[in-house]
Amino acid sequence: MPEQTTGASRPTLEAVAAHAGVSRATVSRVVNGGAGVRQHLVDKVRKAVEDLGYVPNHAARSLVTRRHGAVAVIIAEPEFRVFSDPFFEQQVRGISRELTAHDSQMVLLWVEGVGDHQRIARYLDGGHVDGALAFSLHSDDRLPALIARSSVQAVFGGRPPVGSGLSVPFVDCDNRGGAREAVRHLVSLGRRCVAHIAGPRDQTSALDRIAGYHDVLVDPDPALLCQGDFTRESGARAMAELLDRRPELDAVFAANDLMAAGALHTLRERRLRVPEDIAVVGFDDMDSVVRDTEPALTTVRQDIEGMGRLMVKLLMRLLQGRSDAAPASVITQTSLVRRASA
Amino acid sequence: MPEQTTGASRPTLEAVAAHAGVSRATVSRVVNGGAGVRQHLVDKVRKAVEDLGYVPNHAARSLVTRRHGAVAVIIAEPEFRVFSDPFFEQQVRGISRELTAHDSQMVLLWVEGVGDHQRIARYLDGGHVDGALAFSLHSDDRLPALIARSSVQAVFGGRPPVGSGLSVPFVDCDNRGGAREAVRHLVSLGRRCVAHIAGPRDQTSALDRIAGYHDVLVDPDPALLCQGDFTRESGARAMAELLDRRPELDAVFAANDLMAAGALHTLRERRLRVPEDIAVVGFDDMDSVVRDTEPALTTVRQDIEGMGRLMVKLLMRLLQGRSDAAPASVITQTSLVRRASA
Repeated sequence: MPEQTTGASRPTLEAVAAHAGVSRATVSRVVNGGAGVRQHLVDKVRKAVEDLGYVPNHAARSLVTRRHGAVAVIIAEPEFRVFSDPFFEQQVRGISRELTAHDSQMVLLWVEGVGDHQRIARYLDGGHVDGALAFSLHSDDRLPALIARSSVQAVFGGRPPVGSGLSVPFVDCDNRGGAREAVRHLVSLGRRCVAHIAGPRDQTSALDRIAGYHDVLVDPDPALLCQGDFTRESGARAMAELLDRRPELDAVFAANDLMAAGALHTLRERRLRVPEDIAVVGFDDMDSVVRDTEPALTTVRQDIEGMGRLMVKLLMRLLQGRSDAAPASVITQTSLVRRASA
Repeated sequence: MPEQTTGASRPTLEAVAAHAGVSRATVSRVVNGGAGVRQHLVDKVRKAVEDLGYVPNHAARSLVTRRHGAVAVIIAEPEFRVFSDPFFEQQVRGISRELTAHDSQMVLLWVEGVGDHQRIARYLDGGHVDGALAFSLHSDDRLPALIARSSVQAVFGGRPPVGSGLSVPFVDCDNRGGAREAVRHLVSLGRRCVAHIAGPRDQTSALDRIAGYHDVLVDPDPALLCQGDFTRESGARAMAELLDRRPELDAVFAANDLMAAGALHTLRERRLRVPEDIAVVGFDDMDSVVRDTEPALTTVRQDIEGMGRLMVKLLMRLLQGRSDAAPASVITQTSLVRRASA
């Protein structure tokens, strides 16, 4: 009985045209969006489509092959952050190039606020993309869970929070190991009072870098840790606050290069010499930031563009059903790049 | 006879589950992407889907309502331009906010090269978006035609080239009128030798601003017109070339603010005073550019964010079939903003 429905269940474009009393071309245009077709013809065709249960080929085809030829890239940050933090540009560049190599179309989405979460989840469940890559996720909102529970395969950039229950494959760098190396380097230079400008505590990259700082400086003075939000301005403010709290500090490790650049700005304003008075280390080795700092910034290098490419490769392996062969997640190495600031 | 197929043509999820010998939940997961389902079950479900001609509800629904809840925004520029020219950020901001107001998801695409054109056209024809907004289009490649001929309703940012045969509704500002006002202002200040740093000749905005320049300065010395590409660097280079060609020039109208900022940089290097030696006018009134120029930049203001919003409004009216009531295209007014540079 089900076998018998196969023929009847696929009415042709021609059948719709005949039922509606219009040309095949008109049906095709309406089915594909209806641009330029007069309203009464659109209505006729839609009625015929509903009457016959017609489905255009592309929908039936993509349903079977699971190939929409597109991947959603979700940056869980508002537009002003997307355009002002070069981290996103570099990550997206790697993703865009690797998706192109797989002949897959990148469609970029970002998140202005919690009001966008449900719409993004709907979009992912709408059958428009083969998978989703999501980064800069925040543990205190619902988006990571909504993406993880959506019907498409997802890969995260950055590990999900411990205890979140989200078992989504991810690509991350060794944030904790990199932070350890940065702080060890400052200690090896003889610095006694090493401060940390941390990133937002709802992001695992920031938490892991704080953990690396604590690995080296067991039980440091809590006043030496100041919170930023990964923006240049927050780094400048945090540096000023640290100097007010502990004028004797002689080194600072900032959780990203933008905050380190902000810290350098404050140190210049206060007429403190880098590295003579205060040594500074960043994190990222972001070309567009480090090329402009004065002095040149010592930093922990992570291969941001390469991590974007890895996210795509992991997703593609999972989509091809090669999940057994593929590693669940990838953690890439970091390396300390020594320049003049420390 | 067609009416009779209606019932038979919509096999249920339950029918697919029974045919495949799996649970309803398994069918649902496979149909929605298949993440986490073992391969032999995926294969069984796919065979049942094909045998029965099953179509998930969301595809059938969106086919009839034409509501995917998403709109493609296509920037016909490579990623480095998208992230370095604040014009795109402002245009996309307006679009993003207005789409959110319509509960529609913005999916952003850009174009690294001609190799991307066919993939973008395929994506538009794939039934994933309700419409497309495209801007920074170039008349010497095929993308504008591919978008215009795609199956979804499109609205362009910027008018299509005359003679292109593309009758796509568009939103643009009065580029020619704005340029006229800029040049008239320079002439009214008594400037005798007014140069123009033009944008790329494959973009109608650049051509229209050249036309406005020629409207005021009938038959100017061709050596006073120098070509840029809307980047800051090209403005700096063009200014240097103009000064080498015509050291006596006393004013320059740049076709956008970024090129004007580049020109100011060159003038500073050459130790020429603005406006005493050379008056400078830009185009756009882009906050993030004009707030940093020294001296403050006189420029032609266009409401870039507002134009992004207008593109969405026009698209939504067209999608709602209100094309008769809606104007085909919108041309917004510009205004001269007088500051210190001219």
